[in-house]
Amino acid sequence: MQHISASRMAEIAPFHVMKLLARARELEAAGRSIVHMEIGEPDFETPQPIVQAGIEALRKGRTHYTPALGLRVLREAIANDYQVRYGVEIDPDTVIVTPGSSGALQLACGVLVNPGDEVLLTDPGYPCNKHFVQLMGGTPKFIQLSEENNYQLSLDELEKNWSPKTRAIILASPSNPTGIVLEDELLASVASFAKQKNAYLILDEIYHGLIYGTQAKTFAGRFDNVFIINSFSKYFCMTGWRIGWLISPKAFVNDVDKLAQNIFLAASTPGQYAALAAFSDESIQVLESYRTEFQDRRDFLFEAIQSLGFKIQHKPAGAFYLYANSSQLSDNSYQLAEDLLEDAGVAITPGKDFGELKASSHVRFAYTTSMSQLELGVQKMRSYFGR
Amino acid sequence: MQHISASRMAEIAPFHVMKLLARARELEAAGRSIVHMEIGEPDFETPQPIVQAGIEALRKGRTHYTPALGLRVLREAIANDYQVRYGVEIDPDTVIVTPGSSGALQLACGVLVNPGDEVLLTDPGYPCNKHFVQLMGGTPKFIQLSEENNYQLSLDELEKNWSPKTRAIILASPSNPTGIVLEDELLASVASFAKQKNAYLILDEIYHGLIYGTQAKTFAGRFDNVFIINSFSKYFCMTGWRIGWLISPKAFVNDVDKLAQNIFLAASTPGQYAALAAFSDESIQVLESYRTEFQDRRDFLFEAIQSLGFKIQHKPAGAFYLYANSSQLSDNSYQLAEDLLEDAGVAITPGKDFGELKASSHVRFAYTTSMSQLELGVQKMRSYFGR
Repeated sequence: MQHISASRMAEIAPFHVMKLLARARELEAAGRSIVHMEIGEPDFETPQPIVQAGIEALRKGRTHYTPALGLRVLREAIANDYQVRYGVEIDPDTVIVTPGSSGALQLACGVLVNPGDEVLLTDPGYPCNKHFVQLMGGTPKFIQLSEENNYQLSLDELEKNWSPKTRAIILASPSNPTGIVLEDELLASVASFAKQKNAYLILDEIYHGLIYGTQAKTFAGRFDNVFIINSFSKYFCMTGWRIGWLISPKAFVNDVDKLAQNIFLAASTPGQYAALAAFSDESIQVLESYRTEFQDRRDFLFEAIQSLGFKIQHKPAGAFYLYANSSQLSDNSYQLAEDLLEDAGVAITPGKDFGELKASSHVRFAYTTSMSQLELGVQKMRSYFGR
Repeated sequence: MQHISASRMAEIAPFHVMKLLARARELEAAGRSIVHMEIGEPDFETPQPIVQAGIEALRKGRTHYTPALGLRVLREAIANDYQVRYGVEIDPDTVIVTPGSSGALQLACGVLVNPGDEVLLTDPGYPCNKHFVQLMGGTPKFIQLSEENNYQLSLDELEKNWSPKTRAIILASPSNPTGIVLEDELLASVASFAKQKNAYLILDEIYHGLIYGTQAKTFAGRFDNVFIINSFSKYFCMTGWRIGWLISPKAFVNDVDKLAQNIFLAASTPGQYAALAAFSDESIQVLESYRTEFQDRRDFLFEAIQSLGFKIQHKPAGAFYLYANSSQLSDNSYQLAEDLLEDAGVAITPGKDFGELKASSHVRFAYTTSMSQLELGVQKMRSYFGR
């Protein structure tokens, strides 16, 4: 019997970095030391108050299903945090707890996208987003972001790429891979434009909280045609717990509930109880110290990689990534990533994991490892490039 | 702005039992005592060795992402359990850890179903299954199971409903809502038939382990065109942890990996470490005592509801459900469920949550509450029916 996968599988590119990661592990198994700057998760542990809350929940037997929309107290705690942190009023009824932000994205696309609908995305951008669109039978369409324009979306480009079939646009701020924060006014223009067209903005704020040297804002609570995607993974250092959330326009909450009941049942119960402790003063104090550490790493790496010959026109204000132009060093960034791994022992992510347009001239550095490792990595690259 | 959901949302029926559950909570809030026989999860706590393993994992900081296919040690432990329990050899490479069995079902449908494909399902059956098919653009087609035939699939009906577009058939053994175990020879015939047609059997074994008075078997490891869906939720009493698994034909594992990377990232890490303790002798000893308790409840309730006027032709061997014909008591089982809730204080699930064909003459009793509660429920119904 010949096994043939559904045709959607051919459309899903594997993460190229996975191949590099597997090779890195091979090299490590053979005794080489590798500096990891390819990993998209914080190296920090989940803060102890959150871990303790998880342990406490387990001791109390919090291991049964929660409602599909999540624990009511957690939905209220999330809404309350928007009030405390940003002075923004969010109706807890519109906050839906999900299995990671992947779950949130799937719900938003599930209630919005009909087969044949177009959804606008950015290049560069997070590679999984287009698959959620395709899963729903929608067509992803990419708007190129310009490095010169600090990866801010151009409204001209938005209009140019808009069609009567456009149902939504997915943006991220701060963005993966660029770390760039989108301007608030720009987001308002996009949401207004979409609203005129009876369409939606799905805004990924999962790197929210990880913003440096500028006041963090949220776009939640501003427009009734915006879905906000967020997560406890990045700022709260809870990747493996798989707890995210969605803020949905109120009109869609019932449908989101129905869809969540059917495709997930609910997010992990111990994880939800643990997340309740994420907003405590003790947790925030730990998390803010992590944030300061991330900022120091960014500042170091931003200068250091430029001294190696990588180019970045604007210092990104958020996330834990630097997206650097490598064209002075190589005309093939994937080859460069392979060479740096093999010959310098440094793992980074090639641009082709984040798009097509200028992918071969870009690489992503993740500063999700200690300052001493970053320094070591830079030193290794310096020897490799002979600089 | 008028908010209109994607058309798939109109196809997703809400669980009718949710309305009854909400009403039950209202009644309880007003001081009424309600016997719950509508809930599809074990009332038992997760066994302590599993909880302790979860706590230990948290203490050790096991809170980062795992690979998309799951922790290698857990995949091996699951494969090993098939060897220990059933003497069946399973390649750990083909075992994929998922966020609950919902995740497993989504992966199987995702790699198999093309838009326009037909997928056969049973009526009665688990209501979410069809939505995974629809999510992939497939068309669910229902084969009616006959009560007289002990809800075993008829091969004649299978052939009659098969078309050139049929890509797969989804079956469950033991089944929700009937608790019926499908005969091994029947499953082999279905898998063979599907294989001749270059098609697949997706077999839900999530109530596996919960089998009474007969030797439990698995259908895993028999055919290369079978996907096995399973979970730690039911037998292992780990519902809220959200850990399931898929055994995939080897030919699809790479695609399953790619899809999992994109739509989930991975299942909960603390949950995966906890599940490692699920196969220990200490855990199994606790779980087997639960199983004996379930068996006692089944035996009691099977007799008791028949004495009330419900009819069941065959005593089901598995799961924790009785699917009873209520036509002697009412010509509308949804109305009956409402009346029993309001007037007798007993919550059960109406047949319409599990299909359409004989839905109005059936109800599902879940024996997921203590024997004393079941006795109380039966007594309340006895008064209500005046028997």
